Amino acid sequence: MGQSGGGKDRVRQRIGEAIKAQIAAGTYRPGARLPSTRALAMELGVSRTTVTAAYEQLLAEGYLETRPGAHTRVARGLRPHAQAPGLSPPAGPARLSAFGQRIAGFGAPGPFPGRQPAIDFRYGDLAAADFPTLAWRRALNAALLHRPDRLRYGDPCGTPALRVALQGYLWRARGLRCEPDQIIVVNGSQQGLDLCARLLLDPGDRAVIEDPCYLLARQTLAAAGARLLPIMVDREGMRTDRLPAAARLAYVTPSHQFPLGSVMSVARRQELLAWAARMDAHVIEDDYDGEFRFDIRPVEALQALSGASRVIYLGTFSKTLSPLLRLGYLVVPAALRPAFATAKRLADRQAPGLEQDALAALIASGAYERHVRRMRRRNAERRAALLAALAAELGDRVAVEGADAGLHLVAWLADLPRRQEVELALRASAQGLGVHPVTPLYDPSAATERPDRAGLILGYASLDEREIRGGVRRLAAVLEEMRAAGPAHRI
Amino acid sequence: MGQSGGGKDRVRQRIGEAIKAQIAAGTYRPGARLPSTRALAMELGVSRTTVTAAYEQLLAEGYLETRPGAHTRVARGLRPHAQAPGLSPPAGPARLSAFGQRIAGFGAPGPFPGRQPAIDFRYGDLAAADFPTLAWRRALNAALLHRPDRLRYGDPCGTPALRVALQGYLWRARGLRCEPDQIIVVNGSQQGLDLCARLLLDPGDRAVIEDPCYLLARQTLAAAGARLLPIMVDREGMRTDRLPAAARLAYVTPSHQFPLGSVMSVARRQELLAWAARMDAHVIEDDYDGEFRFDIRPVEALQALSGASRVIYLGTFSKTLSPLLRLGYLVVPAALRPAFATAKRLADRQAPGLEQDALAALIASGAYERHVRRMRRRNAERRAALLAALAAELGDRVAVEGADAGLHLVAWLADLPRRQEVELALRASAQGLGVHPVTPLYDPSAATERPDRAGLILGYASLDEREIRGGVRRLAAVLEEMRAAGPAHRI
Repeated sequence: MGQSGGGKDRVRQRIGEAIKAQIAAGTYRPGARLPSTRALAMELGVSRTTVTAAYEQLLAEGYLETRPGAHTRVARGLRPHAQAPGLSPPAGPARLSAFGQRIAGFGAPGPFPGRQPAIDFRYGDLAAADFPTLAWRRALNAALLHRPDRLRYGDPCGTPALRVALQGYLWRARGLRCEPDQIIVVNGSQQGLDLCARLLLDPGDRAVIEDPCYLLARQTLAAAGARLLPIMVDREGMRTDRLPAAARLAYVTPSHQFPLGSVMSVARRQELLAWAARMDAHVIEDDYDGEFRFDIRPVEALQALSGASRVIYLGTFSKTLSPLLRLGYLVVPAALRPAFATAKRLADRQAPGLEQDALAALIASGAYERHVRRMRRRNAERRAALLAALAAELGDRVAVEGADAGLHLVAWLADLPRRQEVELALRASAQGLGVHPVTPLYDPSAATERPDRAGLILGYASLDEREIRGGVRRLAAVLEEMRAAGPAHRI
Repeated sequence: MGQSGGGKDRVRQRIGEAIKAQIAAGTYRPGARLPSTRALAMELGVSRTTVTAAYEQLLAEGYLETRPGAHTRVARGLRPHAQAPGLSPPAGPARLSAFGQRIAGFGAPGPFPGRQPAIDFRYGDLAAADFPTLAWRRALNAALLHRPDRLRYGDPCGTPALRVALQGYLWRARGLRCEPDQIIVVNGSQQGLDLCARLLLDPGDRAVIEDPCYLLARQTLAAAGARLLPIMVDREGMRTDRLPAAARLAYVTPSHQFPLGSVMSVARRQELLAWAARMDAHVIEDDYDGEFRFDIRPVEALQALSGASRVIYLGTFSKTLSPLLRLGYLVVPAALRPAFATAKRLADRQAPGLEQDALAALIASGAYERHVRRMRRRNAERRAALLAALAAELGDRVAVEGADAGLHLVAWLADLPRRQEVELALRASAQGLGVHPVTPLYDPSAATERPDRAGLILGYASLDEREIRGGVRRLAAVLEEMRAAGPAHRI
């Protein structure tokens, strides 16, 4: 066994390393005889057993070789490192695949942790206090206690319990009808999107996106080599009259356009579905915050319309529970199910077992939906505070868009030109305030009409009312400072 | 808000659904005037507020339109479903990308749960009783209590705490020197392998694999479109004298060849590294069970050799903790770090936060290494029981290979020809015994020399000694039954 980890082990290890170093330095050349274990033990003043163990280790690793009754020698095939040819580090940058080269242009994410502003309107963040810690801990602990006898890989699409729970939830909350077999549990909607891109797009294929659009969606489709066709959005969502004559895929956010917030009208939904049918294209419906609609019931999912057999629905728990949970799901047409199952298995075998069990229990018990309702109320309060603060501090110098739903809004600043967005963000950051320009979400190659004013995406789900009011006050002060800086900064 | 969930909500919802149905049926055509809210409220005997709320929902969804002072109408752009063109389900199979078509041939995994034999020697399964439930629960609960104020995405490569803990662990346990920045935390080694294939291989590129080889590794490289070059292994690992004149990648299991169990000799390791340098190719070192070596210390990693700047090391917690945890890691050359960070972010943003925190604490406290030592002892007992049972029940009718390390061995059955492997597995299954033929791990296109006997991969990590002995007895009985079935079954 030799794994006792005591002092003998360390001695043995040091002997082994010393011999390796001597081989590397050429002291012992390939084929050279080593001292007998007895001789070396005497020389080093250690037990013969320890030397024998060190030799056995080197034999197993192939540094030494031996034959019954013969001396132990340095393995004949071995090259001292000094003589090993061509072992210098690779010259120049690593050779990457076409995929690797495409994504190299996206810029590496980070640094992490970045300097975190005291008040940050970053979209996607949630308040840790909102997480249902107790319920989750109970569910995790229960799942830990109810493990089967054997730990083994299960269905790559997710546990039956979670998919059945999700089926019921989607029907109750989103009017979505599907079989549990159409559900693929993924590590957050980002993985769902990536699987769609890999399975449905070849390099050069045309893919429709909204403009502006969620940055990682654009990057994911571009990473697959797709030729992106950005289409402008208005108050009824994507301008479906501008859909192209050919494409393989359309990525849309019909319940709450990201980031501008419009709801795609039913007429346009129908047009989109009819277009997809003519193209034999698939539509990815990213329902990233469909749970959060404050004025009325959450709008019905595109997938729930008749004729939606080409729709892939993308859902997530990142907005209702935590972005760090990394759990989401796809609802795919039955015909695509085998392809997604195989792709998910190759991507990472399956989602984590314990978390799937805990989530299934949370949904089945009703605790998840109670939590969602609580979050909807809490975020309505935050939203009200943000709208009130914006009106109070900025008045008609701000125009708000997309505040009816979701966990963010877009604020267009009437007296700040678009080119000063970055300056605004930098000045705000210096004041401990995180605000995030809308411009990077527009496709730089598209000529989409948009206000020639600075726009900010203000996410509010991680802030309390005091922080929201304080943040807007700071924003107003920064804008005032920029205005005071001189006429060069006026439109 | 309208989310109180009371009876009024249900009435409102039913009114909305009734109007949608009438629109779909053509009762209300696009542009048609709807009854006033007052009239409909009287007609239905509900409050006017409820009808107004229902109309507002339909307005938001785009079914209706209105102008100040005008009647509410059905949206003019709307098409009754009956008239919507081309909404039939797609004819024929879904159109998949080249990647999707390549993986379609792999066959969909499942069914899950399959019929589970009472005693299953399936490789990769672990006994649930071995999982350190208490320690893991404590670590998870501690992580839950120590969350930061905001839940937000972090470094796609993993939390700093986990990567620092892993760096120390890898140095102590595997002699591996790296910076925490070279470590990418992934969802099990399968995701690591998939990221390597995506970043390093283009369709048509040549990739070296061992023959036999882990099936999912072969499939992952094939899914990327690689042209696979299988190379036979012997008792010193892969036959490096047979490495091809050109390739972009080699996938190897040097510490414990999967499934045959040999350790790659240092001479061959050096040859492999020199070859990679000449080719400017990368070497993926899958150290899937490097923790489990029973006779001597775990063999040094390939990555730890000098000149290993083209090695990508792949580690996992699936064999030491649980396959359902879905946590593993890559150690990549510094030059590849940005590409892997971006690819991981696009694949699924990052590994789950809570589990990373818990694992970091487990490693930092020393509890993980204590657990690994315990598991090494426990699995040594299982291995001894299996070897003893095979010797007792089958004697010289079985030749065991690769039992020095890992959690499985290969049993070659002297008096059963290879073509009867499947029959053996089926007969065993009928007796409640799971045994798994070795043949599927050989590349069917390669002419690798191998015994013309049936071979079984016997994984033992999920079984206790009683099950192991009982399983081998059943196996002997099935072999006896096949022998008795007649001379046709003899070699």
